[in-house]
Amino acid sequence: MPTYTPPLRDLQFVMHEVLKVADEYKAMPAHAEVDEETINAILEEGGKFASEVTFPLNQTGDTEGCKLDPKTHEVATPKGFKEAYAKYVEGGWPALSADPEYGGQGLPIVVNQAIYEMLNSANQAWTMYPGLTHGAYEALHEHGTPEQKKMYLPKLTSGEWTGTMCLTEPHCGTDLGLLRTKAEPQSDGTYKITGNKIFISAGEHDLVSNIVHLVLARLPDAPQGSKGISLFIVPKFLVNPDGSLGQRNGIWCGGLEHKMGIHGNATAQIVLDGAVGTLVGEPNKGLQAMFVMMNAARLGVGMQSLGLTEVAFQNALAYAKDRIQMRSLSGPKAKDKPADPIIVHPDVRKMLLTAKAYAEGGRALSLYSALLIDRELNHPDEKVRKEAAEMVALLTPIVKAFLTDNGHIATNACLQVFGGHGFIAEWGMEQFVRDNRINMIYEGTNTVQSLDLLGRKVLGNQGATLRKFGKLVAQLVEEEGVNEKMAEFINPIAMLGEQLTRFTTEIGFKAFQNPDEVGGAAVDYLRVLGHLVFGYFFARMAQVALREIAAGNTDPFYKAKLQTARFYFARLFPETATLMRTARAGVRSLLDTEEALA
Amino acid sequence: MPTYTPPLRDLQFVMHEVLKVADEYKAMPAHAEVDEETINAILEEGGKFASEVTFPLNQTGDTEGCKLDPKTHEVATPKGFKEAYAKYVEGGWPALSADPEYGGQGLPIVVNQAIYEMLNSANQAWTMYPGLTHGAYEALHEHGTPEQKKMYLPKLTSGEWTGTMCLTEPHCGTDLGLLRTKAEPQSDGTYKITGNKIFISAGEHDLVSNIVHLVLARLPDAPQGSKGISLFIVPKFLVNPDGSLGQRNGIWCGGLEHKMGIHGNATAQIVLDGAVGTLVGEPNKGLQAMFVMMNAARLGVGMQSLGLTEVAFQNALAYAKDRIQMRSLSGPKAKDKPADPIIVHPDVRKMLLTAKAYAEGGRALSLYSALLIDRELNHPDEKVRKEAAEMVALLTPIVKAFLTDNGHIATNACLQVFGGHGFIAEWGMEQFVRDNRINMIYEGTNTVQSLDLLGRKVLGNQGATLRKFGKLVAQLVEEEGVNEKMAEFINPIAMLGEQLTRFTTEIGFKAFQNPDEVGGAAVDYLRVLGHLVFGYFFARMAQVALREIAAGNTDPFYKAKLQTARFYFARLFPETATLMRTARAGVRSLLDTEEALA
Repeated sequence: MPTYTPPLRDLQFVMHEVLKVADEYKAMPAHAEVDEETINAILEEGGKFASEVTFPLNQTGDTEGCKLDPKTHEVATPKGFKEAYAKYVEGGWPALSADPEYGGQGLPIVVNQAIYEMLNSANQAWTMYPGLTHGAYEALHEHGTPEQKKMYLPKLTSGEWTGTMCLTEPHCGTDLGLLRTKAEPQSDGTYKITGNKIFISAGEHDLVSNIVHLVLARLPDAPQGSKGISLFIVPKFLVNPDGSLGQRNGIWCGGLEHKMGIHGNATAQIVLDGAVGTLVGEPNKGLQAMFVMMNAARLGVGMQSLGLTEVAFQNALAYAKDRIQMRSLSGPKAKDKPADPIIVHPDVRKMLLTAKAYAEGGRALSLYSALLIDRELNHPDEKVRKEAAEMVALLTPIVKAFLTDNGHIATNACLQVFGGHGFIAEWGMEQFVRDNRINMIYEGTNTVQSLDLLGRKVLGNQGATLRKFGKLVAQLVEEEGVNEKMAEFINPIAMLGEQLTRFTTEIGFKAFQNPDEVGGAAVDYLRVLGHLVFGYFFARMAQVALREIAAGNTDPFYKAKLQTARFYFARLFPETATLMRTARAGVRSLLDTEEALA
Repeated sequence: MPTYTPPLRDLQFVMHEVLKVADEYKAMPAHAEVDEETINAILEEGGKFASEVTFPLNQTGDTEGCKLDPKTHEVATPKGFKEAYAKYVEGGWPALSADPEYGGQGLPIVVNQAIYEMLNSANQAWTMYPGLTHGAYEALHEHGTPEQKKMYLPKLTSGEWTGTMCLTEPHCGTDLGLLRTKAEPQSDGTYKITGNKIFISAGEHDLVSNIVHLVLARLPDAPQGSKGISLFIVPKFLVNPDGSLGQRNGIWCGGLEHKMGIHGNATAQIVLDGAVGTLVGEPNKGLQAMFVMMNAARLGVGMQSLGLTEVAFQNALAYAKDRIQMRSLSGPKAKDKPADPIIVHPDVRKMLLTAKAYAEGGRALSLYSALLIDRELNHPDEKVRKEAAEMVALLTPIVKAFLTDNGHIATNACLQVFGGHGFIAEWGMEQFVRDNRINMIYEGTNTVQSLDLLGRKVLGNQGATLRKFGKLVAQLVEEEGVNEKMAEFINPIAMLGEQLTRFTTEIGFKAFQNPDEVGGAAVDYLRVLGHLVFGYFFARMAQVALREIAAGNTDPFYKAKLQTARFYFARLFPETATLMRTARAGVRSLLDTEEALA
């Protein structure tokens, strides 16, 4: 049975010592009262909830899965899920960073993000039920009418109802322009919606009394393609003007998918049969409204893999210290035992440190991204808000794709530490691998993320946002350029930054002649930029650690942080050597392959 | 539902056009009659068996799994497995490359290896039942007494009985020196064996009337550690002198593991309760005898991943041509359709070509390794036999670790091509990923393989065997050095060969001072050497293709082969840039991490 301990110390280190979020919040009227103590108290409670309430349901949820009653179309979640959700609502967790106008606690996104890391470590499948609700909340908060907001936001905020995103159809996933679900206007201003959706996470379940589906569909006169898509609210139960539940709407679960992982979450086929919906935002502008949900969801998916990376690391570390097998090549280390614990073997350490470094880099990046969203939402200076929004846009595909790919590498490495036991369900490691696998796919595959990054976020504005990130790197390089102790952390990012700048210009020129060059380079480009970002944060974390040590702080946490940063630069960051080569290899080796792919 | 077409053309290309095996067999009296036609006929029949008999049972076997009756200790395999096995025996397949003295057909290992690739593409879990038998057959063939051979080999050869390898115990996997199972000598020359084994593949099942377990155990006076281990035959049913089955032996299945994959194969916990066994080989020399099995098994595991790589590729390719989604960045390609097939996207092609290149490189390497075994077993010249044996020893850990890691990369890439559908069981892709995952672990984890390669096979003889492989590369470089068309395939391996030679010397010196340096570099080293070997074979395959094209052969197969080779050198081979850096990074970044791994 796996175990989980919330990584409070590292969360606090990143928030308070590296990002100094409480100082930032002083400048934001909405969060001016949020101090370190408040944050720490919430983190502690959230960690407790995750480790004590939902983590014990992770393996049982995987084994049991969700069950659809084909007669009632109702879905039973695994044993304990409903009770855990009730406790979650009771604890006020859904409201944490929601708007006080609708009953929210108005706390920073940073805090919510940290809680979500822990919830995902504990139980990704369970966490998707409240997680999906956030996206629906945000889309309605931004695009809903005052009536819609009044009707839905308080219940989504309290967690009394949950939300979904109904986008995918059997023939269209990435390409939403192809979708066919139809919405017919009714005389009362509502719409009758008919169609088939698939892969709807948390699409049907027994945790709450009502499910608020946000559905993409086409109006009768809609233009073809992605410019003819509108967004609708389609509640499972219609809502009476007094807020009470009315009749059952024509939206049903037609089947549940049998999946590789996240068995505890109901991935529903949803049938809309003249379901009553109301329009969100303007007609044919549904995709823009949906993107509000998508961006939140993409950061959320990154958190899922961060959570799995952390919990996989913790368990692999414990196993590697406990399991004795063979002697160290440099002579026995545990002489009183018949063999050494496997942690003495360099490659076992490499696998462990890979997971640890990817967890710590991912944590820094995701909390920084959350801080940018706090700035975007609450900073009084419009220029700061705008810059923060641009930077979040640049970093979102990196959080989504880099963290989930790293999660794949890390959970597989941690499984490997267990040898044959890693393949056995009982130890829990193979579940982490299976659960993580979907994170590289949903909310836009990692290839789609890379095209969004290179095509839209980088080349789309001639590298303007990228240069802003480059300035942060340059600033750090300048700050620490004369500090010999920082050289090992600063030099690699300074060099890579220069290489990447040159390559970005090159690829911009190449794409001008052949747009397919973007598609041939984008995935590798994203990982290069991901490493530059991680490298930057490891350098900043090392900077803090070195200062503390120089000031006489003997907390081994700082020494550990330096070791992890050194490992990162020695063993993971050099992946960029290959990535730069393959990204530059050009698209010919991929496209001139008609016969090979015949 | 996935599909599978045996890759006969590529198998024949490697065998007949690259390796020219039939010419080699003319020099081996045992195989002098084996010509291309014979081989092709067998391949065709074997491919038919795999695609028509066992492939249709792959998904159902995964879903159904094996079931243990706790009262009888008998295991029921999934529906259809037993009938398929009966057909396999009826077809004479188990006897293919077995010794004619015991009823075998005496055909080359190359042919058997090719059949196993196809069987593993079709159904890895099923194939492990006959697959494990080979190891038992070989250990007995080499180390059994004449009586043991007479009693067991004919039935293992015919497939009437199957075999297992009972090594692992709950507290010992890699470190067999720790094993505790006891063997007490009896007055009749037999032994009573008592202990607990785990992870015994094909350990109990209903396919045959008797299972021949080869069990590692300790004699009462045995020295501690790996020098006190003996090997025993412990049949499920004792065998009467006339070959008929006697009483049920005290060896039982105590439980089945719940695993990530290969659900159709029974991974048994085996309880030995005074089971009657007979000694194989000399007392306390069981590990050497077991290594005969292990080496065969390691090559066999490589074939498992090769098989999964091929079948995953075939299905991803078909899906990528069929699934329409989005337009090509360089403008619509399927103008008559609402979107382009996803194969127009460069990154989709990259994922497909990755699997294709790893399948083709793996096929060339594994057939070459099989040819070396044929030389080792049947070449009249002792020097040739000895050199072949050395080269097989060098290549075995590469076949095991490189092919299984590549299988991980390839099956995951092919799953990714399917987007969300890849995560859904129905499409079959996630099963390939799950089934492949164990291949990186069993028969010695890939870390163990890398230590075997660098520590024993390379540094252990001061690079002597590696230099022999280097000579093959040098010979090719010399042969084609002036051929401009070959430059793109020759230059990379010439350069990497030089780098690797230098690095091997360096690591030899470093290891002299600190043996842990081997452990810090070995995994990366194995992948570098793996790429050198694949690069060598891609160059040889390109050489043949260029010659055929120059000679006017218009078969698109040759153009396809060149494209795959070009892709390989442009996109996969450059992984060595990073691997050389990380392998050289030294062990300090892994060992000076006490606080980070506290």
